[in-house]
Amino acid sequence: MQNQTILLASRPQGEPTAAQFQFETSEAPSPAEGQVLLKALYVSVDPYMRGRMNAGKSYVPPFEVGQPISGGVVAEVIESQLDKLPVGSVVVGNLPWQQYSVSDGRGLQQIPTDQAPISYFLGLLGMPGLTAYFGLLDICQPKAGETVVVSGAAGAVGMVVGQLAKIKGCRVIGTAGSDEKVAYLKQLGFDEAINYKTANIPEALTAAAPNGVDCYFDNVGGAITDAVYDLLNKHARIALCGQIANYNATEAPIGPRPEGKLLTTSSKLQGFIVSDYLPQWPEGVKQLTEWYGQGKLQFEETITEGFDQIPTAFLGLFRGENTGKAIVKVA
Amino acid sequence: MQNQTILLASRPQGEPTAAQFQFETSEAPSPAEGQVLLKALYVSVDPYMRGRMNAGKSYVPPFEVGQPISGGVVAEVIESQLDKLPVGSVVVGNLPWQQYSVSDGRGLQQIPTDQAPISYFLGLLGMPGLTAYFGLLDICQPKAGETVVVSGAAGAVGMVVGQLAKIKGCRVIGTAGSDEKVAYLKQLGFDEAINYKTANIPEALTAAAPNGVDCYFDNVGGAITDAVYDLLNKHARIALCGQIANYNATEAPIGPRPEGKLLTTSSKLQGFIVSDYLPQWPEGVKQLTEWYGQGKLQFEETITEGFDQIPTAFLGLFRGENTGKAIVKVA
Repeated sequence: MQNQTILLASRPQGEPTAAQFQFETSEAPSPAEGQVLLKALYVSVDPYMRGRMNAGKSYVPPFEVGQPISGGVVAEVIESQLDKLPVGSVVVGNLPWQQYSVSDGRGLQQIPTDQAPISYFLGLLGMPGLTAYFGLLDICQPKAGETVVVSGAAGAVGMVVGQLAKIKGCRVIGTAGSDEKVAYLKQLGFDEAINYKTANIPEALTAAAPNGVDCYFDNVGGAITDAVYDLLNKHARIALCGQIANYNATEAPIGPRPEGKLLTTSSKLQGFIVSDYLPQWPEGVKQLTEWYGQGKLQFEETITEGFDQIPTAFLGLFRGENTGKAIVKVA
Repeated sequence: MQNQTILLASRPQGEPTAAQFQFETSEAPSPAEGQVLLKALYVSVDPYMRGRMNAGKSYVPPFEVGQPISGGVVAEVIESQLDKLPVGSVVVGNLPWQQYSVSDGRGLQQIPTDQAPISYFLGLLGMPGLTAYFGLLDICQPKAGETVVVSGAAGAVGMVVGQLAKIKGCRVIGTAGSDEKVAYLKQLGFDEAINYKTANIPEALTAAAPNGVDCYFDNVGGAITDAVYDLLNKHARIALCGQIANYNATEAPIGPRPEGKLLTTSSKLQGFIVSDYLPQWPEGVKQLTEWYGQGKLQFEETITEGFDQIPTAFLGLFRGENTGKAIVKVA
């Protein structure tokens, strides 16, 4: 059985290209005692992976050149020498970009197949949904009537943040990069949505937030963030989740210093990664599953088909090609 | 009885000068029923007052042109028509820069005269000491063995922060603007002290913090802050207390964006003002008084004499002329 793997061919300078990826074909492995053979079904491509393509310390270790890239994958057990994961089990975990892989089951989580589409465990009920859940509810702690701004609002994390803020009774403003995405956010229940590519960002945000901004969930950084800082209310809370506007920067990004604004408003800027909340994940998945089951949360995926399309789907993240979660269906 | 008052003559552009201050002489007022006549003893000059000289919203309302400047003052009751404040009482409160003033007692706090020099209620046991106490202990929550950096360490707030961090068992690094201040910090028990005017700041901080930085108490901003951001450990906490490096800026200060560093370390940057902790002030004063009484906290003042020297003492803050609390003894 032939098995394709995607390796990191070289580290990108600035925006990554197809040249960073190398396909390798080998024979599919066989599981040893205590192992399972997994067939990848859905592969997640996420903005944070750009950081792992650089050398050097970050919140997750870098990918190594010449080694497989890895990330969130939903897979099916097709051979098993491990009692707790019989053939037919569906699991999610951090796995190589590979059609077939073996695992001893550590770090894999078996997922139910009857509660939501199984690919949602890479989105609404997985890392992005939990990122939204803990970042908004723990760091921002939005109160009913407050104004919440979400950048990258039509992405996998942002769309969940906005809906959670609506569940909490907030006024919700999202920014996104196309009129189609803006229309979609309105449909999801966002009070205001701004196309940052065509709007005057400071003017549009000021108009959308007449009472100022109490919470900001930042996936993007840059000019949107600068404009939000100018609108912060006293004791505002900012969950710093991503900075996709800066991920491909080749020099340290320069901008207005935010400290003065944070100081005069007694505001908090808190960086985080979802793994900070590892012990609370089961609670988060339970609550998100419940709200989804009650119809209070919608979710959207942009699904690309074919193992060979993984690099293309990944590169599309930086051109804003996805609405909601970017997923590659590989089998 | 003649009474001098200092008014804001005009708003400064950039660094304030003597031209911002206007002295006015009038007749000392008489207290009405329910009022006291106060004689100012010690007047506090503080960096935050620079912000109040600008028009526009900040954390405290701006001073008005043509009106008295006000701030922390220790005063004695010399006439009383108010039972709770008999003649001879010593009080601290926000009062005009005026030799004699009347008050209905609201906002005034009677202070003991037997626990510490009464001017300390403008310093160690007043606003600066409480700023250090809540900013470090509540926002930074330093743990024994962690590394704490304090900028503006030889100032009224900074010297208390450093000593509190030593009480908590931390490695403490301070920055200050002269070799004399650096020597003083070492004498106070700081593990390392850096003269930011002569050192290569990133190199000196890197050498002083071989295990990275867990807590940063920022009074200054600018280049020192940029260097600290590069050294943050995972889950670092930054108490954002002041930005004296930027107070006289006439254009919005530009610098390296900090968000990336905060994000990859899951760090917190929290702006605050001591009034955020108003309900806990008595607890803070009690604890600081106790540590002072036990000899665990030292305090230093730079005292200028004469009511007419208040503007000069204030302007000296921005040239780093004070070690510890800048106070004017006016009577």
